[in-house]
Amino acid sequence: MSTKILVIHGPNLNLLGEREVKVYGELTLDQINQQLRDQAKNAGIDLAAFQSNVEGEIINAIQQAKGKYQAIILNPGGYTHTSVAIRDAISAVQVPTIEVHLSNIYAREEFRHKSVIAPVAVGQITGFGINSYLLGLQAAINLLKK
Amino acid sequence: MSTKILVIHGPNLNLLGEREVKVYGELTLDQINQQLRDQAKNAGIDLAAFQSNVEGEIINAIQQAKGKYQAIILNPGGYTHTSVAIRDAISAVQVPTIEVHLSNIYAREEFRHKSVIAPVAVGQITGFGINSYLLGLQAAINLLKK
Amino acid sequence: MSTKILVIHGPNLNLLGEREVKVYGELTLDQINQQLRDQAKNAGIDLAAFQSNVEGEIINAIQQAKGKYQAIILNPGGYTHTSVAIRDAISAVQVPTIEVHLSNIYAREEFRHKSVIAPVAVGQITGFGINSYLLGLQAAINLLKK
Amino acid sequence: MSTKILVIHGPNLNLLGEREVKVYGELTLDQINQQLRDQAKNAGIDLAAFQSNVEGEIINAIQQAKGKYQAIILNPGGYTHTSVAIRDAISAVQVPTIEVHLSNIYAREEFRHKSVIAPVAVGQITGFGINSYLLGLQAAINLLKK
Amino acid sequence: MSTKILVIHGPNLNLLGEREVKVYGELTLDQINQQLRDQAKNAGIDLAAFQSNVEGEIINAIQQAKGKYQAIILNPGGYTHTSVAIRDAISAVQVPTIEVHLSNIYAREEFRHKSVIAPVAVGQITGFGINSYLLGLQAAINLLKK
Amino acid sequence: MSTKILVIHGPNLNLLGEREVKVYGELTLDQINQQLRDQAKNAGIDLAAFQSNVEGEIINAIQQAKGKYQAIILNPGGYTHTSVAIRDAISAVQVPTIEVHLSNIYAREEFRHKSVIAPVAVGQITGFGINSYLLGLQAAINLLKK
Amino acid sequence: MSTKILVIHGPNLNLLGEREVKVYGELTLDQINQQLRDQAKNAGIDLAAFQSNVEGEIINAIQQAKGKYQAIILNPGGYTHTSVAIRDAISAVQVPTIEVHLSNIYAREEFRHKSVIAPVAVGQITGFGINSYLLGLQAAINLLKK
Amino acid sequence: MSTKILVIHGPNLNLLGEREVKVYGELTLDQINQQLRDQAKNAGIDLAAFQSNVEGEIINAIQQAKGKYQAIILNPGGYTHTSVAIRDAISAVQVPTIEVHLSNIYAREEFRHKSVIAPVAVGQITGFGINSYLLGLQAAINLLKK
Amino acid sequence: MSTKILVIHGPNLNLLGEREVKVYGELTLDQINQQLRDQAKNAGIDLAAFQSNVEGEIINAIQQAKGKYQAIILNPGGYTHTSVAIRDAISAVQVPTIEVHLSNIYAREEFRHKSVIAPVAVGQITGFGINSYLLGLQAAINLLKK
Amino acid sequence: MSTKILVIHGPNLNLLGEREVKVYGELTLDQINQQLRDQAKNAGIDLAAFQSNVEGEIINAIQQAKGKYQAIILNPGGYTHTSVAIRDAISAVQVPTIEVHLSNIYAREEFRHKSVIAPVAVGQITGFGINSYLLGLQAAINLLKK
Amino acid sequence: MSTKILVIHGPNLNLLGEREVKVYGELTLDQINQQLRDQAKNAGIDLAAFQSNVEGEIINAIQQAKGKYQAIILNPGGYTHTSVAIRDAISAVQVPTIEVHLSNIYAREEFRHKSVIAPVAVGQITGFGINSYLLGLQAAINLLKK
Amino acid sequence: MSTKILVIHGPNLNLLGEREVKVYGELTLDQINQQLRDQAKNAGIDLAAFQSNVEGEIINAIQQAKGKYQAIILNPGGYTHTSVAIRDAISAVQVPTIEVHLSNIYAREEFRHKSVIAPVAVGQITGFGINSYLLGLQAAINLLKK
Repeated sequence: MSTKILVIHGPNLNLLGEREVKVYGELTLDQINQQLRDQAKNAGIDLAAFQSNVEGEIINAIQQAKGKYQAIILNPGGYTHTSVAIRDAISAVQVPTIEVHLSNIYAREEFRHKSVIAPVAVGQITGFGINSYLLGLQAAINLLKK
Repeated sequence: MSTKILVIHGPNLNLLGEREVKVYGELTLDQINQQLRDQAKNAGIDLAAFQSNVEGEIINAIQQAKGKYQAIILNPGGYTHTSVAIRDAISAVQVPTIEVHLSNIYAREEFRHKSVIAPVAVGQITGFGINSYLLGLQAAINLLKK
Repeated sequence: MSTKILVIHGPNLNLLGEREVKVYGELTLDQINQQLRDQAKNAGIDLAAFQSNVEGEIINAIQQAKGKYQAIILNPGGYTHTSVAIRDAISAVQVPTIEVHLSNIYAREEFRHKSVIAPVAVGQITGFGINSYLLGLQAAINLLKK
Repeated sequence: MSTKILVIHGPNLNLLGEREVKVYGELTLDQINQQLRDQAKNAGIDLAAFQSNVEGEIINAIQQAKGKYQAIILNPGGYTHTSVAIRDAISAVQVPTIEVHLSNIYAREEFRHKSVIAPVAVGQITGFGINSYLLGLQAAINLLKK
Repeated sequence: MSTKILVIHGPNLNLLGEREVKVYGELTLDQINQQLRDQAKNAGIDLAAFQSNVEGEIINAIQQAKGKYQAIILNPGGYTHTSVAIRDAISAVQVPTIEVHLSNIYAREEFRHKSVIAPVAVGQITGFGINSYLLGLQAAINLLKK
Repeated sequence: MSTKILVIHGPNLNLLGEREVKVYGELTLDQINQQLRDQAKNAGIDLAAFQSNVEGEIINAIQQAKGKYQAIILNPGGYTHTSVAIRDAISAVQVPTIEVHLSNIYAREEFRHKSVIAPVAVGQITGFGINSYLLGLQAAINLLKK
Repeated sequence: MSTKILVIHGPNLNLLGEREVKVYGELTLDQINQQLRDQAKNAGIDLAAFQSNVEGEIINAIQQAKGKYQAIILNPGGYTHTSVAIRDAISAVQVPTIEVHLSNIYAREEFRHKSVIAPVAVGQITGFGINSYLLGLQAAINLLKK
Repeated sequence: MSTKILVIHGPNLNLLGEREVKVYGELTLDQINQQLRDQAKNAGIDLAAFQSNVEGEIINAIQQAKGKYQAIILNPGGYTHTSVAIRDAISAVQVPTIEVHLSNIYAREEFRHKSVIAPVAVGQITGFGINSYLLGLQAAINLLKK
Repeated sequence: MSTKILVIHGPNLNLLGEREVKVYGELTLDQINQQLRDQAKNAGIDLAAFQSNVEGEIINAIQQAKGKYQAIILNPGGYTHTSVAIRDAISAVQVPTIEVHLSNIYAREEFRHKSVIAPVAVGQITGFGINSYLLGLQAAINLLKK
Repeated sequence: MSTKILVIHGPNLNLLGEREVKVYGELTLDQINQQLRDQAKNAGIDLAAFQSNVEGEIINAIQQAKGKYQAIILNPGGYTHTSVAIRDAISAVQVPTIEVHLSNIYAREEFRHKSVIAPVAVGQITGFGINSYLLGLQAAINLLKK
Repeated sequence: MSTKILVIHGPNLNLLGEREVKVYGELTLDQINQQLRDQAKNAGIDLAAFQSNVEGEIINAIQQAKGKYQAIILNPGGYTHTSVAIRDAISAVQVPTIEVHLSNIYAREEFRHKSVIAPVAVGQITGFGINSYLLGLQAAINLLKK
Repeated sequence: MSTKILVIHGPNLNLLGEREVKVYGELTLDQINQQLRDQAKNAGIDLAAFQSNVEGEIINAIQQAKGKYQAIILNPGGYTHTSVAIRDAISAVQVPTIEVHLSNIYAREEFRHKSVIAPVAVGQITGFGINSYLLGLQAAINLLKK
């Protein structure tokens, strides 16, 4: 059976390429997903992508990943800084999760410097635009090789 | 094409007129919306109203306002104090947003004194009951005149 | 007309018995609900149970409890520490609410020590596993007797 | 006897139209007062305006408003964040007071986010330039109608 | 040999029924102890009760419980928020201890929200008046059954 | 040459007897001053009283007390919590100063619990209504006797 | 029946006159008590004095004052800053209590600036050496006259 | 037209040479002003000096400096740590302002370490006694040369 | 007359050797005292030991040490972090006091990192098990030699 | 001329493979450098590596990178949390710098959660063991392609 | 023997004139040193300059200044905010030290507002570019004249 | 092979006996080292001593101790409060390390109360002058005996 990875995009990431392109880059979410699927394919991996603005639906997606996906790549967007419930979902399902951010959250407002997700993630990649996702995918592949 | 304004009511505001009338007043949400529509009509403006208890649906509504509405009047209710995701939606869509509160949030519990929405809003009106909405509408109309 | 009590389980509690059994015990949510229904029945009380990962749906459930249920037993899960909106719903509907937690939240990470729900609850029971629910039900029954 | 409203402008507001026009707008204090008087006149109300850079003179003005004015519109300027003495004056005279700010104080430096005046004001309007005053006047008129 | 449970009442609880009855209820300490003994008897358990205003005597009582009692029900009163020494006694004797409070400490002054005892207790029950004790006894009985 | 004591009343104390009589009592400032003068006279002391809402005028009064008065009784009102400048004046003139408050500032809002004046005062008397002044005068007389 | 006042001296005050005379003065506790009794006698009042280093015994003394004494003068010494239990005793017995300190606690180490007793006391007198007690007695007498 | 510089001395600086000479030095304000005028004269500059204990008058002086003086040398005294209003005046008039202090404020009490003025000043000179002023004047002259 | 040293063991130290042996070691308090007495004897010193769980009795012991003992070795146990009253006793009696801890308090919970005793002790020895006491005794002997 | 990248390893990283292998992995620094050189070679890039325990030598290395290297990969080790001087060096030389950490610093002690380097880095990769370096190298290569 | 002054430049100051010229100015460190030497010469003083990026070498330089230099002018760069060790060196050698900064550190990031050096310096000059050094030299000369 | 212990003296300790003798005592570092060597010799132990002002060299020394020394006695001087890098070196080499301080750091400035080294040390001895070292050596010998 093939290896499968789930990419979860949090709130407002559906607007990529349309909003604040100076901060978040010009690619749309579809284009990012396509690049991720291409890179995954090269590594012989199935990659699925999911976006929601609703915290609870992200929790649902994480819960349903259990047994179906071997790793999660998660950009929690604005929920990064407050969502204990998403954090608990990650702890609960025990699917290794890699946290990614397009922008360097540590170079922005003070309240964006604290991630409640990071302590339960495998690791965090922040500040490389779309490459944060692609490096995250590479990290996931490395992880699953072990 | 006519000018259009969207009013978004956050969590628990569907209970207006039924709950804690001493704090929030005796008008129901429908009555408030009617007064807003009337005042908007007088100014030759279309006004739509939306209420949800779900943070993500409020984000959806803000995102969908882009290109359809010229301004948003937002009472974020209990999400005022924590929702970075709603804040990011406002920053992303760049529709001018006016934050309103029925009660004077600065005369209530300490944790209600901090709005994470306010820094990305045009301005904030707090403490005038239903008039917070009506003054917010007037502020929006003034804004759109410029 | 019979007395009715609503049990609301917050985010990730649908995973009970599957996840982190060392922290949360081996019973599934269905088994917990069954025990609660049995104990309620013995006391001549109807008990309904609801679970959601979505903050807004928990708010909806609390709002709809008004006039239908005489008490709520709430395990707010990860929303315990941040959800002003759930707190406001409890204040609004004025249905007496008892906060319960499976684990002793005060023996865990610092950020779990603060409940924004507790100040508007009747009381809080924490740390007794499934017995937190059963004692919470007993507390509700005592309350309704008065 | 006619209704009377007092507008109090705090420190540095005498420089309006001359200083930092990008932050505070191009109107002078006289022009703002004139617009306020005009709008008040339309509502059949007498409006007086007062400016001082001296904290104690603002306190004097608030004290003397008692029995002569039915409402105060106050822009406390730099005293917003520190003046317990102005706050006490408002509490003492019990003339309903509406706090206004030209700029959105919550989008500026951290130390401007805290108003010691707000908890004793009826409400606060912030971020709408001269319209903060005009909306504040409207709020006062609504208040006095009740 | 019969199972034995020790109830320890902290400072000022000897005044129950005489002081602040609106906060703490109308029952005297003797009446509470009687109800506890009755409920214990029904469960075939011996229950002893002890009250002291002296922190060190409470420590003595906890130490002496070792080997004589199978569980402790402790209302630490005003020592809840500061007594590292009582906390250390509980850790030392390893007799399972259940913390109870008559009033909802989370609905009172800020300084009552922090219990230094809770992290070493099995769990905490707060806000149900005398029922906090009775539910605590039930929790202890459940615990000892396992 | 006779002993002389200066009483300085800070901002809003000119409203005594008119405002918030439940908090501050029913006596006017004149009546308080009269009682102080009477008690001083009995002790063979000249007593002068001064009130101002202007921080700088209070500083002026303190400075001018040097060489003319042997002690100061100061109720700094709202300047208690922020005025480093008044504090510096007291340090500078080295006239022994007794801080008094009508109400118990420690039983009021958190921001009233901190006096920047107290560390340079001889002592502080708070919570006894007009008696705070009379006891302060007695304290000054005792001090001058030594 | 005669009016009776209880003076309670907290920990280490039995050492007065022997220790740190530069901070606390040269009078012994007995001499202070004698002066207090003399002044009380002049006012036709019975005065009793009690000293203990044990927090719980101070609580006992406060509890036993109920019905026997009309007022308490309390110097809580080192318990001033931490004893919620003594505070609760004062709240419970409802005997008006006046907090006194020999030294000016606000001119000493930071941790001595916060009294947990003050919010439930009638008022506080600090910094006047033995006169803090004598003024406190006078304050009690004034209080009982009303 | 000649270059003009305004020196503003804040509260209590009129007492120089009389008070706390160990901290502030033995020169009177007049002597300091004379030295400043002499040094200015040597550089072909007109220097005026102003002192006030009233915060609002300092603001007035700063406002009136606009167009008349090319630089301000300001010792804000006790207002250094709290006066947002003086800070705003400096921002508003855009006359380059140099903050000076006689004593080393960073070697004194904690509350003197924070200047709200410094962020809008050109720079700050602290700790050199009267030389702080003279170096400040030199800094102003250098600045105006550019 | 021989030199005398007093060892004071704080709350719960009577349980040594019985409780948490992994943290505190396997020796009983009697065995520790015996080793201390032996080492003291070798140095020609009389050593007395005292243990109490009651804060006030520890204060009594410190007070009575004055004039009888030349040094105190104190393990304040759980009172280390809160007891201003024990601290004041040490300051008062001026008997040189050495603070010791069996475990390394800086490697344990955050709240154990702060000792209110340390600032008035000669020094502190922490983390060496029973050797903390023996080194403390050696430190006392060195001290008394000078 | 070929592209060149500098890898800087901070304090204690010379011990890799020898110390705490459970936290930091089993590879030695030489092995990591070899893997980095290999991966760089594949991309046609020259890679140099440097390690030092001395903060100032790391600053020297960063300064000397200017004009010689197109990117820096920096693991600041224990200097991550305090070194403003390293941060300033990065800002000064303007060579794009990628911060990497072997372990997930956000899952470790609180004091490791704050990086003073991150705000001036392009981005940060944390938690993937040696892969943090390899992903960092990939990120650098991507960056230089643009 | 001639008077000698040592100028110490901290980390990254060797890059002056090359880096961030908008913040730090266009002069190189050599040019600044030359101007300092010229101004010193005019005053008949020998001036030596030293720069290092290594904290410990700066400490060495300060230690070796003892007995050789009469004053130090120190720009601690990034070590300003953290180096207790440099602070201790200054306290130890007792050579009067003047702290200077090119930029106004109080107008920059929050973490630059706190200097651990300032409390042991004679004074601080900040914000005047190279003139901070020249004014610092003047301050040193004034100091040595006394 | 003989047992070997390394003593590391941090920054500024080379000045001992020359600087601030009131705080640190009159012995030079050489004299202290001699006493340590003598005491070690008596116990049949080789003792080497090392001092550096450079944080990185202290790290080097700790790293090189591995396999050569059985214990380290470390006085980290000014690096005590900030050096995560030294802490990490101690954790890495796993040579038992005893932290010593000449002065009682808890009786000095607030910023000296926090040691980042202590949590990874075996224990800490502070406040006994040179005896802190000698007791630390004794503690090391005891440790190695086990």
